[in-house]
Amino acid sequence: MRATTLHAPRDIRLSEVPDAAVELPTDAVVRVLAGCICGSDLWPYRGENDITEGATIGHECVGVVEEVGADVRSFGVGDVVVVPFCHCDNTCVHCRAGVQSACTNLGVTRSGQAELARVTQADGSLVAVPGASDGDVDEELLPSLLALSDVMPTGWHAAVSAGVTQGGTAVVVGDGAVGLCGVLAASVMGAEQVVALSRHQPRQDIARAFGATHVVAGRGDEALEAVREITGGVGADAVLECVGTDQAMRTAFDVARPGSTVGFVGVPHGVELPIRRMFSKNVGLAGGMAPVRRYLPQLLDLVGSREIDPGLVFDLTLPLADVAEGYRAMDERRAVKVMLRP
Amino acid sequence: MRATTLHAPRDIRLSEVPDAAVELPTDAVVRVLAGCICGSDLWPYRGENDITEGATIGHECVGVVEEVGADVRSFGVGDVVVVPFCHCDNTCVHCRAGVQSACTNLGVTRSGQAELARVTQADGSLVAVPGASDGDVDEELLPSLLALSDVMPTGWHAAVSAGVTQGGTAVVVGDGAVGLCGVLAASVMGAEQVVALSRHQPRQDIARAFGATHVVAGRGDEALEAVREITGGVGADAVLECVGTDQAMRTAFDVARPGSTVGFVGVPHGVELPIRRMFSKNVGLAGGMAPVRRYLPQLLDLVGSREIDPGLVFDLTLPLADVAEGYRAMDERRAVKVMLRP
Repeated sequence: MRATTLHAPRDIRLSEVPDAAVELPTDAVVRVLAGCICGSDLWPYRGENDITEGATIGHECVGVVEEVGADVRSFGVGDVVVVPFCHCDNTCVHCRAGVQSACTNLGVTRSGQAELARVTQADGSLVAVPGASDGDVDEELLPSLLALSDVMPTGWHAAVSAGVTQGGTAVVVGDGAVGLCGVLAASVMGAEQVVALSRHQPRQDIARAFGATHVVAGRGDEALEAVREITGGVGADAVLECVGTDQAMRTAFDVARPGSTVGFVGVPHGVELPIRRMFSKNVGLAGGMAPVRRYLPQLLDLVGSREIDPGLVFDLTLPLADVAEGYRAMDERRAVKVMLRP
Repeated sequence: MRATTLHAPRDIRLSEVPDAAVELPTDAVVRVLAGCICGSDLWPYRGENDITEGATIGHECVGVVEEVGADVRSFGVGDVVVVPFCHCDNTCVHCRAGVQSACTNLGVTRSGQAELARVTQADGSLVAVPGASDGDVDEELLPSLLALSDVMPTGWHAAVSAGVTQGGTAVVVGDGAVGLCGVLAASVMGAEQVVALSRHQPRQDIARAFGATHVVAGRGDEALEAVREITGGVGADAVLECVGTDQAMRTAFDVARPGSTVGFVGVPHGVELPIRRMFSKNVGLAGGMAPVRRYLPQLLDLVGSREIDPGLVFDLTLPLADVAEGYRAMDERRAVKVMLRP
C-alpha cells in the first residue's frame, strides 16, 4: 500500500510499504477515505521528537472496514467508521471510568496518512457512521467526520477538563486546529464569553465561526490585560491550553481566575508548571490525552444533526501523493490543518 | 505582649514585643487561648525559607475578642472565636466563589504563638464558637477548635480538591498533622478505603483513630506496590498530597489511577511536577492554600457534635514560655503537633 513515511527531519515521503493487516483476532483493517496531518505530527517532522527512520506516520482517519479479525463482532466489511487515534477495548476499568486513553489494551493508529490502517480492539474503538456503508458517505460531512478522529474530541476534552459551564468565561490558548475545536466546544457547552487568543486572520475567522465572542491578538502580558478587562479583573472561569509549550501554559495560568482549572491537551514540550501560582491561587490542571471514544457518540450526533461543523478546520485538501506539501503548509502555518485523500 | 520571634535558623525565642493592635477599622485583636506550631513553620525555622530577623511567627490560634475596630459589626469583646490563618472579607468575588484564600483583601495571622493576635477583615474572617463567651470555652473541645484554624480545614481541602467521594479509595501521602486530618476528612466524606502512608507508630495510631482502613509503611515503589494491591491494580480514586516535597508529589502521582486528581495542600518546596505522566494518564492536580473560612461552619458543626475530634493531632501541649522546646520536638519528629498555652 502507499503510506506516508518519515525518514529524517523534514524528509517525509509517500512510500510503498506492506499492507496494513489483521494481526490479532480483535483487529480490523480500514481502507482510508480521508486522513489528515496533526499538529503533533510536526514535532517529529521538525526533528523535535525522536524519529524511527522509515516508520509510517498519521493517526487520524475515517474509512471503510476492509477486513475484520475472527473476534470482531460489531463491525463488518463495508461499514463506514470513524477511527479514534487511540484504540481501546471500551470495557476495561479505565474505559468504564471514561479514560479510554488509558485503556489497559491501548493502541494507536499508525498509518492514517495511507491507504490502509490497522485498528486494534476494533469492537471497542470504532464508531460507525449512521446511514453510510460501502464507502457511500456524504462528501460534505466527510471533513467533520474526519475531525472526530482526534482534533474535535481533543478540543472537547480541553473544555471538559477545564470545567467549562453555562454562562462563564472560557479562554482558549492556541489557535491551531485543536484550539479552534476548543472554542467550538466551549461555545456548545454554553460559555457566555469565549475568548480566542489568535493573531492570524484566517484562524480568527474560524474562531468566530465556531462561536468566539472575543478574539485577542496580543500575547503574554497583553493577553493577560485583555482577559482582565473582559472579565472585569476577575480572570477566566475556565482555560483551555491547546498548544503544549511553556509559554502557552504560562499564559493559561496567568489568565485563570483563582479556583479555576486549566484544561490541557497540547502534548507538553519543555513545560515547567508554575506550581507556586497554582498553590497560592488554587488553580488546578486537568486533562491530557483525549479519551476520544468517550466523546464520539455525542459528537457524532452533533455532526449528524449539523449542530457543529468541526470540518471547517481543514483549509487545505490534497491528494495523498502531495503529503509532503501538506506538511510544509502546516509547518509554515500556511494551512491550519490539511486533509489528505488517498 | 509576649510573642514568639524567629531570629536565625533554630534561634526561636519568646520575646517582649509591642501589643498587637487594631490598625484598621475592620481589624480585631484576639487574646490567644491556644496557639500551635505548623509544619510550615519548620521551613523558616530550619532556614529553608527566608527569615526576617526578629519577626513574630505563628498563624494558628483560637481566642477571645479583646478589641474591635469601628467597622466591625458581627463580633464584640468577649466572643470566643476560631481565627482562620488566612483572613478574608468573605464578600469579594473570589470569596463568593469559595476561594477565600485568594480574597482581594487577604491577610494572615502573624502572632498566633503569642498573647495577642491581630485579625484583619474581622467580620469576614472570624467564626464564633457557639455557647462560649468571655473565654469560657470547653477545655476538652479546645484542641479541636484550635485545629480548625488551619490544619483540619487544610486536610479537608486536600480531600475536596482530590474529589474524594463515597465508596472510593483515597490515599493520603504524608503523616504530619495535615495528612492525618486528610485521613479524617476522607473518612468523613465516605471513602470506603482510606490508605495512610506512614512509618511512625504514633502517627499510624492517630491515622487509624481517624478512619484509615490501611496503613502502608513503605515508601516509593513499595508504597506504589501496596496501593496497587489494595486497589486491585487500578490505583487510587483520589490522592491527598500533604507534604510539599518532590518525593511526596511523585508518590502521589504514582499511586493515582488514570483520570483521578491529586489534591495538594503541602506548600511546594522543590517540586517538579511529572507532566508527562499527568498527560498520558490524565491525572490532574488541584488544591493549594486552603480557603479555611469556607469550610469552618461545617467543620465547627462536626466538632460541636463530637462527630470529629481533629484535636487528637496535638500530642504535646506546652506553656508558651516553652515554645522553643515545641519547635525542637516537631523538628525532631518527637511530636506530631504542639499546642501552646499563653
